[in-house]
Amino acid sequence: MPHLTVEYTDNLAGLPGQQLLAELNAVVCGHTTVQDEADVKARLLPLSCFEIGTAPAQRGFVHVQLRLLSGRSDAVKKELSDAMAAVLHRLTPQPPGMLVQLSVEIADMDRASYYKGRL
Amino acid sequence: MPHLTVEYTDNLAGLPGQQLLAELNAVVCGHTTVQDEADVKARLLPLSCFEIGTAPAQRGFVHVQLRLLSGRSDAVKKELSDAMAAVLHRLTPQPPGMLVQLSVEIADMDRASYYKGRL
Amino acid sequence: MPHLTVEYTDNLAGLPGQQLLAELNAVVCGHTTVQDEADVKARLLPLSCFEIGTAPAQRGFVHVQLRLLSGRSDAVKKELSDAMAAVLHRLTPQPPGMLVQLSVEIADMDRASYYKGRL
Repeated sequence: MPHLTVEYTDNLAGLPGQQLLAELNAVVCGHTTVQDEADVKARLLPLSCFEIGTAPAQRGFVHVQLRLLSGRSDAVKKELSDAMAAVLHRLTPQPPGMLVQLSVEIADMDRASYYKGRL
Repeated sequence: MPHLTVEYTDNLAGLPGQQLLAELNAVVCGHTTVQDEADVKARLLPLSCFEIGTAPAQRGFVHVQLRLLSGRSDAVKKELSDAMAAVLHRLTPQPPGMLVQLSVEIADMDRASYYKGRL
Repeated sequence: MPHLTVEYTDNLAGLPGQQLLAELNAVVCGHTTVQDEADVKARLLPLSCFEIGTAPAQRGFVHVQLRLLSGRSDAVKKELSDAMAAVLHRLTPQPPGMLVQLSVEIADMDRASYYKGRL
């Protein structure tokens, strides 16, 4: 059931989107708390209209949100977050003169009401 | 105030997006915990860049997230989730050879700080 | 670390998207709980496929979601929400005959597992 969403500002030309998703999925699927690799569902959202802070500077960001069914420990969440951050640092391009921020957020999904099925 | 977001991978050709939103809205509006039908705000987001798991298989998914002001019981949430799942099962196309996953997530929004108004 | 997401139905022709983000950022950056203005990351998402309620009426909406690291008081959240709502009321166009709903949601992000870095 993990849901992974990657947003990036589209001034980060050359960001290898599909590879980024594949490597983040590998991190999540490789973790012992995930049982079926097919469960990890990742999507990439390029952002064409954005605003970062208030100063007139050249800025960009990549943000990952991973949503997991509630119940994982803080330690597991921190491990996943750090491992995904390492992928971001490796794959995000650095345009000259741009301040690029990277962030990873782990969120719980309510387990009691979650529905999961297949056609 | 309910906010409904439907994401689907765009390899699910023929998914009747507008009808899907209309039928999901009918489920939510029909529930006794929703007072004004105009409050239910649904949007459809096609995903053109996605990655499901790590195996090289043909896969797709539809995911519904319903955000409600905090305070609903687990039973109400489960009822809404199951009723929306039934709509997904009825309306999602099954492309030959594709594993299609369906999921529904119910999330709370913080009631104390929520703002709601009209022009 | 604040993440700001503005969604609007694209029947709200003339909505000044970039200005809306800039003014919302100014509200958030100006608050005493935010230390570095560069941290506020805002994005605008136009919605081309949506459904509001079940009645056949002309309707639109603008929804703001602000995600903050957990720990802010209810009073701070309410202040931010109201200040952002005032910006929405000032900048959202009113097409003739359309019911336009405005809403602001404040959500917590898990502080313990949040990753933040720069290239």
